[in-house]
Amino acid sequence: MARHYLDHASTTPLRPEARAAMAAWDELGVTADPGRVHTEGRMVRAALEDARDQVASLFGVRPRQVVLTSGGSEAVNAAVWGVVASSTSDRPSSAPAPVACAAVEHSAVRDASAHHGTVVPVAVDRVGRIHPDAVADAVARSVADHGRGPVLAHCQAANHEVGTVQDVAAVVDRCHGLGVPVHVDAVATAGHLPVDVAGWGADLVSVSSHKLGGPAGVGALILRPGLRIDPLLVGGEQERGRRAGLEHVIGAIGFGAVAATLADPGRLDDESAAARRHTDRLLAVALDVDGVTPYGDVYRRLPHIVCVGVDGVEAEPVLLGLDQAGVAVHSGSSCSSESLEPSPVLEAMGVDGERSLRLSVGWSTTDGDVAAFAGAFGGVVGRLRDLAR
Amino acid sequence: MARHYLDHASTTPLRPEARAAMAAWDELGVTADPGRVHTEGRMVRAALEDARDQVASLFGVRPRQVVLTSGGSEAVNAAVWGVVASSTSDRPSSAPAPVACAAVEHSAVRDASAHHGTVVPVAVDRVGRIHPDAVADAVARSVADHGRGPVLAHCQAANHEVGTVQDVAAVVDRCHGLGVPVHVDAVATAGHLPVDVAGWGADLVSVSSHKLGGPAGVGALILRPGLRIDPLLVGGEQERGRRAGLEHVIGAIGFGAVAATLADPGRLDDESAAARRHTDRLLAVALDVDGVTPYGDVYRRLPHIVCVGVDGVEAEPVLLGLDQAGVAVHSGSSCSSESLEPSPVLEAMGVDGERSLRLSVGWSTTDGDVAAFAGAFGGVVGRLRDLAR
Repeated sequence: MARHYLDHASTTPLRPEARAAMAAWDELGVTADPGRVHTEGRMVRAALEDARDQVASLFGVRPRQVVLTSGGSEAVNAAVWGVVASSTSDRPSSAPAPVACAAVEHSAVRDASAHHGTVVPVAVDRVGRIHPDAVADAVARSVADHGRGPVLAHCQAANHEVGTVQDVAAVVDRCHGLGVPVHVDAVATAGHLPVDVAGWGADLVSVSSHKLGGPAGVGALILRPGLRIDPLLVGGEQERGRRAGLEHVIGAIGFGAVAATLADPGRLDDESAAARRHTDRLLAVALDVDGVTPYGDVYRRLPHIVCVGVDGVEAEPVLLGLDQAGVAVHSGSSCSSESLEPSPVLEAMGVDGERSLRLSVGWSTTDGDVAAFAGAFGGVVGRLRDLAR
Repeated sequence: MARHYLDHASTTPLRPEARAAMAAWDELGVTADPGRVHTEGRMVRAALEDARDQVASLFGVRPRQVVLTSGGSEAVNAAVWGVVASSTSDRPSSAPAPVACAAVEHSAVRDASAHHGTVVPVAVDRVGRIHPDAVADAVARSVADHGRGPVLAHCQAANHEVGTVQDVAAVVDRCHGLGVPVHVDAVATAGHLPVDVAGWGADLVSVSSHKLGGPAGVGALILRPGLRIDPLLVGGEQERGRRAGLEHVIGAIGFGAVAATLADPGRLDDESAAARRHTDRLLAVALDVDGVTPYGDVYRRLPHIVCVGVDGVEAEPVLLGLDQAGVAVHSGSSCSSESLEPSPVLEAMGVDGERSLRLSVGWSTTDGDVAAFAGAFGGVVGRLRDLAR
C-alpha cells in the first residue's frame, strides 16, 4: 500500500541536495580529524568550515557564532547549562538559578531548565502565545520568590505542536530591558520560516539539521557575538573550545548543503507557501468532521504544522486507524510521546491534550498525501465514535 | 602524489561494511522518529534496535546496557556528569566530588572530571601504566584531603597516544574493594583489542564508532546492569530516558554493521596481527634513526599505535616534512592538538612531549604506506637536524 507521511515536524526525509553533497564528500575519500595539521586534516577542516559558512549564512550570522552540536536537544541543553553554569560559577553553593520558561516550550527546554536551574513558569494564552507582559511577570515573581531575576528566559520561535508563532523580538526586547538574556528554540521553525537571529536580538538560538531536511546527528547553537558560556561537553579544542568531540563532518556537510539550498532567493517563501496550501487543506478537511476543533493560532502559525482536537475519541486509535489507511500522523508532545501521555504543551493552553492530532508536511509532501488524509480521516473518526457508543 | 595515512588513531576511514549498510538503509527510503507509533516509526525503531544488538554483541553486553551517544567525548562527559550528579544529589551545596584520574587519561576524561568534580591525581609509571596501588593511594589521599573517597575512578583500557594497555581488571578489582566505581575509556581500544566489559567488571565504558571504522557522530556509553545515573542530555524519552535527542539512526546502523563485522570469529585477531606487523615495522624503521626512542610499553600496547621521541627536532616540522613526502602522522595529544602543545599524557610519563610522533595504522593500511614512511623518515629528520646546526 502507498504510504503518506504527514509527520514531517518529527523528522523530514533527507533532501536530495544533502544526499548529493554527502555522497560527493564520501567519494572524495578523505578521512581525517579536522584538528590535524597534515594535508588530510586541512582538507577536512576546509570542508567543515565551508559547511559552517553555509549554516551561518542561512541564519544571517557570522561563522564563528555557530557552534555545531549533535542536534537540537544538545544545543538546547548546552544553552541552558552554559548560561546557568556561567552565572553561578561565582556562587557555587547557592540555590539553583531561576530560569523563566513557559510550559509550551519543548521538553528539552523545560527539562534542561529544571535539571540545571529552577523553573519560573511563564503563562501563555489559549493559542500558546508567550506575551512580553507574562515574561515580565515571571521576572518579578523570580525576584520575589528567589531573591533575584532569572539568569535566562526562553522564548521558542514557534510552537512545535500547534505551530503558533511567537513574538520573539518583543519578548527579547522586554527581557533585555529587565537584564535577562534570552534563548530561542528555533528547532521547529528553522527551514520553514526565517530565523532572524540578529533581528530578534536573541542571545542564544538552537537549530537542528534533520528538521529541515539535513541529516540527523547534527545541529547548532548560535551565540550572539562575544557571548562566552561554559561548555557542556569538554575535553577538546573543537568548535573554539566550545564543544568537545570529533566533528560530525559529513553531517555538517549535509546540513550546510540544505542551508545553502534554503538560502536561495525565494526558496523558503516558495516552500512555505506550498506547505501553507497543504496544511490549509488538511485543516479544512479535518474541521469538516463534527467535533473537530483547531488548536493554536491557525493564522500566525508555522506553515507546515496544524493541530486539531477530536471530540469523543482517544488519539491513539485515530493514529492507528490512519496508519492502517497508509497515513502517518502524530499526537502529543513532539519528543516524549512513546507513552502518548497528555501533552503538557496543550495542557498549558487549557485544551484537551489527550485528543490532539498533529498533521505536518514537508518538502516532499504531495497533493496525493493530503488527499489520502482527506479520504481516510472522516471514516476513521466515524467508526471509532460508533464503537464508543 | 600518492598519500599514505598513518593517523588512524585520530580517525579511520569508513569501512565498506558500514557504507553498504548505511546505503541500503538510505535506499529503503524510510524516515521517521523511532519514538512514533506509526508504521514508519516502528520500522525505524526496529532498525535502531538491530544496530544496538550488534553493538552490544561486540562488547558482550545486553542491548539495554548500551546508551547510544553522539560519540566518545559525549559518552565520557555523560559518564562523569552522571556519576558525580547522582552522588551529590543528596548534598547539593557540598564541595565538588573527588574523582580519581591519571594524567594519561584522554583530555575528555581529564577535563570532564575537573569540570564536574575535583581531580585526585593518580600516578603512572614511565610507560604510562596505572597500577592498582597508585589508585589505592589516590583513594587514601582523597579521604585525607577531601574527607571522603572518590565518587569515581577512571582507568582507560589503553593509552591513546603511546598505546600502553592497562591492567583494567586489576584496577577495577582494587577500586571495587575500596567502594569506588570505575569508568573505562575504551575509545582508543575498541575495534583493536577485545573490550571485555564483564571481564573487567567495569561500571561504565565509553566507546566511539569512528575510531573503529564506523561513521562519526555516534558512540556509546555502556552501563553495568542495573546502574542508573543522572542523564547529561535531558528532554526526551530516547535511550530509556538516559539520553535525549532524536537518535542518529543511520549512524547507529553503520556502527552496528562494523560491530557485526568485528564480531566475526577471528576477525579482530586477524586485524590486530596485521596492525601489529605494520607497527612493529614502523617502530623498527623509526628506531633505526639515531636519537629516536620509543614511548610507552612497546610490548603490551595497542596493536595499531606506536609513539616515538625524536631528539633535537620539534614535532611540527617533522610532521610537515613527512606530509610533504605524502605521509600523514600525528604528534601530541589526540584531541586538543591544534596548538601542538606538549602532551600532558607524555609529561605525566616523564618523557619529552614536545618531540613525540605517533604512528597509527588501520584496516585500510597497506605495506606501501609503511614503506612510504620508511623511505621518508630518516631523510626528514636528518635535514631538520642539519638545519638546526
